Amino acid sequence: MKIIVLKFGGTSVGSIARIKKIAKIIKAYSKSYRVIVLSSAMSGTTNKLIDLSKKISKNFSDQEYDVLVSTGEQISCSLLAGQLIENGLIARSLMAWQIPIVTEGEYKFSRIKYIDKKKILNFLKSGGIPIISGFQGINKDLNITTIGRGGTDASAIMFAKFFKAERCVIYTDVEGIYTTDPNKLKKAKKIKNISYEEMLEMASLGSKVMQPHSIQDARLNRINIEVKSSFFNKTGTLITKRKNIISNKIITGISSTDNDAKVTLLGVKDRPGIAALIFKPLSQNSINVDMVVQNISSNGKETDLTFTIKSFDLNKTIKILKNNTKISFKKLIVDKNVSKVSIIGVGMITTPGVTFRMFQALAKQNINIQVISTSEIKISVLIKRKNILKAIKALHAEFNLNK
Amino acid sequence: MKIIVLKFGGTSVGSIARIKKIAKIIKAYSKSYRVIVLSSAMSGTTNKLIDLSKKISKNFSDQEYDVLVSTGEQISCSLLAGQLIENGLIARSLMAWQIPIVTEGEYKFSRIKYIDKKKILNFLKSGGIPIISGFQGINKDLNITTIGRGGTDASAIMFAKFFKAERCVIYTDVEGIYTTDPNKLKKAKKIKNISYEEMLEMASLGSKVMQPHSIQDARLNRINIEVKSSFFNKTGTLITKRKNIISNKIITGISSTDNDAKVTLLGVKDRPGIAALIFKPLSQNSINVDMVVQNISSNGKETDLTFTIKSFDLNKTIKILKNNTKISFKKLIVDKNVSKVSIIGVGMITTPGVTFRMFQALAKQNINIQVISTSEIKISVLIKRKNILKAIKALHAEFNLNK
Repeated sequence: MKIIVLKFGGTSVGSIARIKKIAKIIKAYSKSYRVIVLSSAMSGTTNKLIDLSKKISKNFSDQEYDVLVSTGEQISCSLLAGQLIENGLIARSLMAWQIPIVTEGEYKFSRIKYIDKKKILNFLKSGGIPIISGFQGINKDLNITTIGRGGTDASAIMFAKFFKAERCVIYTDVEGIYTTDPNKLKKAKKIKNISYEEMLEMASLGSKVMQPHSIQDARLNRINIEVKSSFFNKTGTLITKRKNIISNKIITGISSTDNDAKVTLLGVKDRPGIAALIFKPLSQNSINVDMVVQNISSNGKETDLTFTIKSFDLNKTIKILKNNTKISFKKLIVDKNVSKVSIIGVGMITTPGVTFRMFQALAKQNINIQVISTSEIKISVLIKRKNILKAIKALHAEFNLNK
Repeated sequence: MKIIVLKFGGTSVGSIARIKKIAKIIKAYSKSYRVIVLSSAMSGTTNKLIDLSKKISKNFSDQEYDVLVSTGEQISCSLLAGQLIENGLIARSLMAWQIPIVTEGEYKFSRIKYIDKKKILNFLKSGGIPIISGFQGINKDLNITTIGRGGTDASAIMFAKFFKAERCVIYTDVEGIYTTDPNKLKKAKKIKNISYEEMLEMASLGSKVMQPHSIQDARLNRINIEVKSSFFNKTGTLITKRKNIISNKIITGISSTDNDAKVTLLGVKDRPGIAALIFKPLSQNSINVDMVVQNISSNGKETDLTFTIKSFDLNKTIKILKNNTKISFKKLIVDKNVSKVSIIGVGMITTPGVTFRMFQALAKQNINIQVISTSEIKISVLIKRKNILKAIKALHAEFNLNK
């Protein structure tokens, strides 16, 4: 019998009523699969615990932080296991130390290195359903650790990898991945299948369903992920390898950002390595530079440099640029009223003219493009923030995403 | 350097403010001792967790119950350890599985069998203060268990035993053990020293500071226990062996009960073993019979039997007596308006006339004694409930407990 990994996020186990609901979902799967369940903490629990730690200190010990917040998953897992037992199934909770799930790296930011399969395989063979605490592990010192990026999603992907699961189902509070944000455009459609690469671009560009880190892990291990809602019994979105996807669409989805800022340095004294001198101190301060355009000035000795960062990094960025004695420039201009809109799709690799169609569609709406950046499966443009909805609407229609 | 075990109950770690307070208490001890801390869950936490389990099922799995409620101590221990680290001390939380604390017996009602000392001794030697989750352990299957009776008190006593601690300090929300309930008699005085045996009588007779089970464990292992308040910096009560106590008082304390009921069977057909036939089915139904008096009737063939039970067992008791075909009696009389008042003190062993003084003091107040029961260090009498305060007051004065 094949193994399936089911992951339930915080809202899916957010109340006893929700736990009763997902117990039924698990029971249904258990008729056709050996089921491994990964659960997050009940929504709200983790934040409450973090608040307690902050009342003690802003620099609360990382090691004790992990001990503290990992109780959230222990609570939800024991309740869910108790509910399944109540429903007549064989189930039990399993904490990271009982398996064990071995992590490496720092407290608060650990990564799963190894999962001991023995205990879980024995339990699966006996007809049991293990309910495993997501987001946590233990390190070589037998101390509790938590997983920095991706949380329980990352745990679920690693379980799917180690147990060679046929599929990993991520139950969350959205119905799947949409062609664009349904809150912005009502015509947004749920995507049936999306490639890892497209999903990575969607995720890093603003779709908050799954963290890029987890998608990348799934991609590397060729794990089929289904994202779906635990609130409605509907097909979700399958994230899989390109080969599995048959689609006549050039573009799979459109994403946008709301918190970009544009920085322009005019009259930068140009010399080899000038870009590195500008960007290195930003990188050292964890400021992520996204789009970059450099224009060579007419006299060949000066250049204008434009780049985008997250709005919340703007003040820090200005300070760093002004204090940077290794560079000189005439003027610094900032614009906080910009947004990035991107079209994403593996279809564009084999289809010429996509860029032209995108620019034309925006031009028809009198939307001016400030910066452009492209990858193999993505074209991003920076526009005025006030035009963002108009742009999404035009592109959604242009690339036939309205169905 | 000598080892001391400090136990903090739920109210002592009931808020972040309280945790900051007890961190200071711990720091003070750490100057003269190697300190081992046992902590309960923050007050209210355990009940909230139990409520969640009840919403799933009244028969919530015992195994998962232990996983669930043990998170309470994990939270308080990590917060307390974080606070001590914040205060510049070396500290860390330790869960039962990390030590391990090995238990035997059923889930929810386990007993500590063994504590592995290695990890803690190493940590103590490095100057560290281990903050250990009370109330929990793991069994041979590496599953989380909780301790049925005594909870974190029992854990603390066992740690004091295994580590041969000089003292075990039980921090709680009362200032110590009193000569009688201070809520009933304002003149009640805090007892400086009390023997295990006296404390056992006080505890089982109604003083709810510590469970008899834990006191008995301390007695068997000759562990000095100090009960004191974490709210005020005052000397508490030392529970120790008789030899350590020098006192000129005959009576150490007076306890009373509020929930007794008296049952009288009139005209019971008397034959050998009749008492066993009456009491066996009660015992089988977990009904605790306390005081017993049997009068031989004038004709020698019938007897009257009077005994006391807890009021909440009364209906069940009546039903069992009436359905008991192995006995016959003429009439069953019950009285729910009775209370037991007891004087306790090792001094009475060597002092004649204590019983007489007790009866005389009560007689002076026109209090009628219904049943009497005595042990080596205790005399209990059953009286009308309405006379209880008058009786305590009279006895408190008679035996010089007002100081």
